[in-house]
Amino acid sequence: MKKLFAIVVCCLLAYAVHAQVHPLAFNNATEFKYVQANLKQTALIGQSYNNLKITTDRRMLESIDVPVPKDAAGGYTHDQHKANYLLMFDAGLMYQLTGEKKYASFVKKIFLEYAKLNPTLKNHPQATSSAPGRLFWQALNDANWLVYAGLAFDCIHDFLTPTERIQIADGAFKPIVDYFINEKPDWFNLIHNHAVWACAGVGIVGIATDNDNYVQMALMGSKKDGKAGFLAQLDGLFSPDGFYNEGPYYTRYAVLPFFLFANAISHKYPAQKIFQYRNQILKKALDVALQQTNINGNFFSYNDALKQKNYTSNELVVAVDIAWNAYGFDSSYLPVARSQNRIILYKGGIGIAQALSNNKNKFLIYPYQSASYTDGADGKSGGVSVLRANPKNQLTTLVFKYTSHGLSHGHYDKLNIQLFDNGNEVIQDYGAVRYINIEQKWGGRYLPETNSYAQQTIAHNTITVDEISHFKGVEKTSEMYHPNQLFKYFSPTNKVQVVSALDEHAYANVKLFRTVYLIQLPGVEKPLTLDIFKTKSDSIHQYDLPFNYLGVPMKTNFTYTPALEEQKTLGKKNGYQHLWVEATAKQVSPFTQFTFLNDSTFYTVSSLSSDTPDVYFTRIGANDPNFNLRHDPSYILRTTSQNQTFVNTIEPHGNFNPVTEIAHHSTTAVSAIERLMDDENYTAVMVTIQEKKLLVIQSNKLFDATFKHEVSINPLGKTIRWQGPVYIEFDHTTLK
Amino acid sequence: MKKLFAIVVCCLLAYAVHAQVHPLAFNNATEFKYVQANLKQTALIGQSYNNLKITTDRRMLESIDVPVPKDAAGGYTHDQHKANYLLMFDAGLMYQLTGEKKYASFVKKIFLEYAKLNPTLKNHPQATSSAPGRLFWQALNDANWLVYAGLAFDCIHDFLTPTERIQIADGAFKPIVDYFINEKPDWFNLIHNHAVWACAGVGIVGIATDNDNYVQMALMGSKKDGKAGFLAQLDGLFSPDGFYNEGPYYTRYAVLPFFLFANAISHKYPAQKIFQYRNQILKKALDVALQQTNINGNFFSYNDALKQKNYTSNELVVAVDIAWNAYGFDSSYLPVARSQNRIILYKGGIGIAQALSNNKNKFLIYPYQSASYTDGADGKSGGVSVLRANPKNQLTTLVFKYTSHGLSHGHYDKLNIQLFDNGNEVIQDYGAVRYINIEQKWGGRYLPETNSYAQQTIAHNTITVDEISHFKGVEKTSEMYHPNQLFKYFSPTNKVQVVSALDEHAYANVKLFRTVYLIQLPGVEKPLTLDIFKTKSDSIHQYDLPFNYLGVPMKTNFTYTPALEEQKTLGKKNGYQHLWVEATAKQVSPFTQFTFLNDSTFYTVSSLSSDTPDVYFTRIGANDPNFNLRHDPSYILRTTSQNQTFVNTIEPHGNFNPVTEIAHHSTTAVSAIERLMDDENYTAVMVTIQEKKLLVIQSNKLFDATFKHEVSINPLGKTIRWQGPVYIEFDHTTLK
Repeated sequence: MKKLFAIVVCCLLAYAVHAQVHPLAFNNATEFKYVQANLKQTALIGQSYNNLKITTDRRMLESIDVPVPKDAAGGYTHDQHKANYLLMFDAGLMYQLTGEKKYASFVKKIFLEYAKLNPTLKNHPQATSSAPGRLFWQALNDANWLVYAGLAFDCIHDFLTPTERIQIADGAFKPIVDYFINEKPDWFNLIHNHAVWACAGVGIVGIATDNDNYVQMALMGSKKDGKAGFLAQLDGLFSPDGFYNEGPYYTRYAVLPFFLFANAISHKYPAQKIFQYRNQILKKALDVALQQTNINGNFFSYNDALKQKNYTSNELVVAVDIAWNAYGFDSSYLPVARSQNRIILYKGGIGIAQALSNNKNKFLIYPYQSASYTDGADGKSGGVSVLRANPKNQLTTLVFKYTSHGLSHGHYDKLNIQLFDNGNEVIQDYGAVRYINIEQKWGGRYLPETNSYAQQTIAHNTITVDEISHFKGVEKTSEMYHPNQLFKYFSPTNKVQVVSALDEHAYANVKLFRTVYLIQLPGVEKPLTLDIFKTKSDSIHQYDLPFNYLGVPMKTNFTYTPALEEQKTLGKKNGYQHLWVEATAKQVSPFTQFTFLNDSTFYTVSSLSSDTPDVYFTRIGANDPNFNLRHDPSYILRTTSQNQTFVNTIEPHGNFNPVTEIAHHSTTAVSAIERLMDDENYTAVMVTIQEKKLLVIQSNKLFDATFKHEVSINPLGKTIRWQGPVYIEFDHTTLK
Repeated sequence: MKKLFAIVVCCLLAYAVHAQVHPLAFNNATEFKYVQANLKQTALIGQSYNNLKITTDRRMLESIDVPVPKDAAGGYTHDQHKANYLLMFDAGLMYQLTGEKKYASFVKKIFLEYAKLNPTLKNHPQATSSAPGRLFWQALNDANWLVYAGLAFDCIHDFLTPTERIQIADGAFKPIVDYFINEKPDWFNLIHNHAVWACAGVGIVGIATDNDNYVQMALMGSKKDGKAGFLAQLDGLFSPDGFYNEGPYYTRYAVLPFFLFANAISHKYPAQKIFQYRNQILKKALDVALQQTNINGNFFSYNDALKQKNYTSNELVVAVDIAWNAYGFDSSYLPVARSQNRIILYKGGIGIAQALSNNKNKFLIYPYQSASYTDGADGKSGGVSVLRANPKNQLTTLVFKYTSHGLSHGHYDKLNIQLFDNGNEVIQDYGAVRYINIEQKWGGRYLPETNSYAQQTIAHNTITVDEISHFKGVEKTSEMYHPNQLFKYFSPTNKVQVVSALDEHAYANVKLFRTVYLIQLPGVEKPLTLDIFKTKSDSIHQYDLPFNYLGVPMKTNFTYTPALEEQKTLGKKNGYQHLWVEATAKQVSPFTQFTFLNDSTFYTVSSLSSDTPDVYFTRIGANDPNFNLRHDPSYILRTTSQNQTFVNTIEPHGNFNPVTEIAHHSTTAVSAIERLMDDENYTAVMVTIQEKKLLVIQSNKLFDATFKHEVSINPLGKTIRWQGPVYIEFDHTTLK
């Protein structure tokens, strides 16, 4: 597909080079006229336009400042160059929308400054990245600059004289493009979000300046062989489902160049139908990213991620509005656009604003769904499952991650789970340690604790063996492997959702086999998470299973020894050095219970271990000389055994309203967990909840949906027969 | 005034006893008809009525349950009796509003159960309070029951046969009233919020059951001598300004019985004009409570207080709606009622809902004002000042507390400050350690850490001398004294606000003299807090001054030694045992700076000490075996000296938007603090901010607003002349 596309592009390039009219990188002239004609159609459009006009006009009152690069992220010159490229694009838009030459003239003046500055630049003085920038500390930000400056140039193309165009193309753009292509080709040709930005930047500049060579390299890589470049990125960074290999936080970041460049390509080569490429891979990517948010719109924070990022960020405004144009009406985008409360001045922005206006009280909540997404370009590198219940205000979401590593921003987190409920994160993934763009925090870079803590296995809700992270914390090794999904069962009513995955590579000598269930039991208010986590080894190991809960401890069913006067770390390395031990319980009963209060809801983690575990209550914050870490707690079960089976339930229950002062059901309804059977073939467990019995039997070997099982469960004195990998019965009734 | 009132009441009682018609405790029949006629007037009224009807009807479907008392707060029987009294009143209202007998009949049935149960009760099995309850663990909750049950009885009075009335009065009410009056007269006769509830309960029951003896005791105390009871409470618990002695959190709690009982009295003795009593003391009380909230409506958390409580709580709905009726239109109540988004089915509730409907886009924000409130019945027991700037969305509020102790819920916090900004608490008062009504947390009682940490001086933003709390942490001693305000200066434009107070009793051998300034400097975005805190002693002491900030540390201007592998407590007692030391800096330069990020705003605390202080970064959480404490940080300056002057500025600056990733002005604009003069007579300081000079001179002795000062400031080589206690000059211009 890529090859065919390339040939056609080359032919078109040959044809197009003499005939190109501008603008066309963002909107063409007809589209700008359409936007202009509709500026008063709805309040949201008017307000988005007014905001653009007001901020642009205000910033144009300030003198032009194109400083010599000096500061790291968050510092003055960094912020100024960032402000410049945003302003250039905004003023370019204003020129097209009003026809007022002052805007174009202003953009031109800035460009002429860059045309003087850029040829003089060497590597940025604050460059610490393997891909240093010129205007900014890292090349990524220079690529951002190219994208916006390219779009801005396109907007004022016709205002410029041919001489000015050459002056800017050669002075402002060429030094950066040449740097990317000639000095950093390995970086430019990566299949990675940085390179997506780089290709989008070079490609958009190519389209804006009628430089077909740039466009070809952007699409096909610097060698124009199709092994790199935008099309290879569309092929390589997404699974067939649209799952982006770096996870939702970076999808958010990457959708912007993907959509902006695709939009520019669709203008230049409409016949290519770039938005249809690979079965609409860009729409799938956007939809999978949106599905990977919590009800507040915040993206799941696995891999390197900052928790505050949500779908109201600028990147998603651009992506949703462009998608609206490319793919037509999709009601799922309306709640997102409503939260964003702004549009881009683009045909799709006008369209979505009109749709919002026509659907005032409809489509208020994003249509969250349960799904399994595959990872890997061929969909064969594991994946992530999102199990959901109550898809309205009180949405419960259980995330089960068994993806591949996820490039440089991946964590050592095989078979990790995350639980969201009632709008909150309840069992968390820490995300990354970073204060983006805050100069005092190492210039806004990823902080060292990202590697020393947040990426380590103990920071995740999965098993660490012998206090060593998965793949010994070596990215290169981790990149080579991935767990596999063994089976997935979503019952027709979605009352029962089960996903099982196996990891055989995180540790040389231990296999990790986890099956997670989200079950809506009749007569029980909230869905119950059941988690059967088995280890298999031929030797004895220490297994640590943390629940990185957020909330206030309420109660345990065991006594523990608190660290009263003195606190020490849980360990010396692999993330353990960042955990203070707040309390310890040694060799408690195999059945442990821990209740905590998160916001207004109580949660109880009940666990049955194969032997008598130790329990640690820890808090993040040790070995943190610069106060970079959050002080979040964890509840860790530790056993030293050969083949361990942890059977855990996580039960949301009751609520507490601090205003009315009323607490309901603050104690758990789970009173027992029994292991009825646990061998190579089957694991059978019985959970007593509200004094009723939940019986779950899973096959540990045969996962075919049509296979018929027959097992006699001795403690029950009966034989159960069923079809498919799991059998679930509650209060003597089979659940499906 | 009290005596006269009492005589008139007695006369009226003599007259009224035979002629009384019901209902009259909450609404009289005419008022109920008025409410009924207006139920469809506005959406808010309709919605409030529908909620009442729906919840009442739903709860009436459940079987009546009047269990034998057994559980602590948050437990089943506690919650059930609480649910019962609320339901009884609601169903009583529904009977009056609909005339449907099923409601009255339902209330009667519950009452008859209580008439059987109550005579059998002894002290509650979970009673640990000095005033144990019968239905509940503490008598206070029994008083709550009396208030609501009394109102409910009044609603169904005419539905009951005379025999039933006697049966209920003698069976349900009398045992509790007798218990209060005969067995707990010392408690009933307190001037304290518990006794307000008790008097309101006994009084409302008296009015409902035509028992004038009850009413007399409720108004005048069990001995009917006026030394106790409701009128003595109105006289004794408020300052002439309306400041409630226990602080805003408990005002919130006490306004309910105050307003409900006053309303009942106003129905029974309209000629008494109880709402006019003591120059409308109840309106003042309500207004002072509302002024003591942050922009989110949360009450200031000084004294024992839970932070989540805001003015949408039920108590404030009742108070505001009754005040609306008693005092007429007051636009300041409209933003409060709008946030409450519900009304009580009462004439004032109808009125305020109509006013909201007539003023849709007006009065959106509570009119926060700067003010000094006196404490003490005579207004001579110190007070609290609330300094404010930007009284809109970004409100900055500096609270300066120099009140008396505040009864049993007071803290050892003389001269404490609290800073709110931009919707957030920035320099906090911990409040109390309590999970109200959560059974697992010691039955919802105040937890031991309230006393061992939250009440101690080190938990506050004021000086602890020699690691000993004010008044050695002895309530009885603390109750005897209070600081005094020395002067207050609010400039005509409020650009300069200054309050000074002196404490001479917290320590036998150290005087504490603090002057706080909130200054809006021309050309500076946010108001600057300046804090001059002097100690005076004839011997050397250790002075600890904490800033209990909330946020993430960003930067210091000194190096410190972090506790990496091991953490110990700051001390052994008086709250110090609960603080982990996270980092220490010994004998740093006298000028220390510390920047932190709170939500989206940066704050820098700059301090000039008289010598080289030690600095401690601490975190709450040590010696907390039950995980009761929050893990909040503190920044503590420590010096060992005789007469210390801490000059501190707290500067809000810049902002950080995690969605757009843009940080502005993340570094402080304060570059120096100099002490130009500091003796018995004057303290003169110079703060360099944005490279301009802020000069502040304060008189330490002569505070008269008309006194003319003349001081030569040697380091400046000039003499300054001014009038009044302070002189302020910025960038060579005098600020007023």
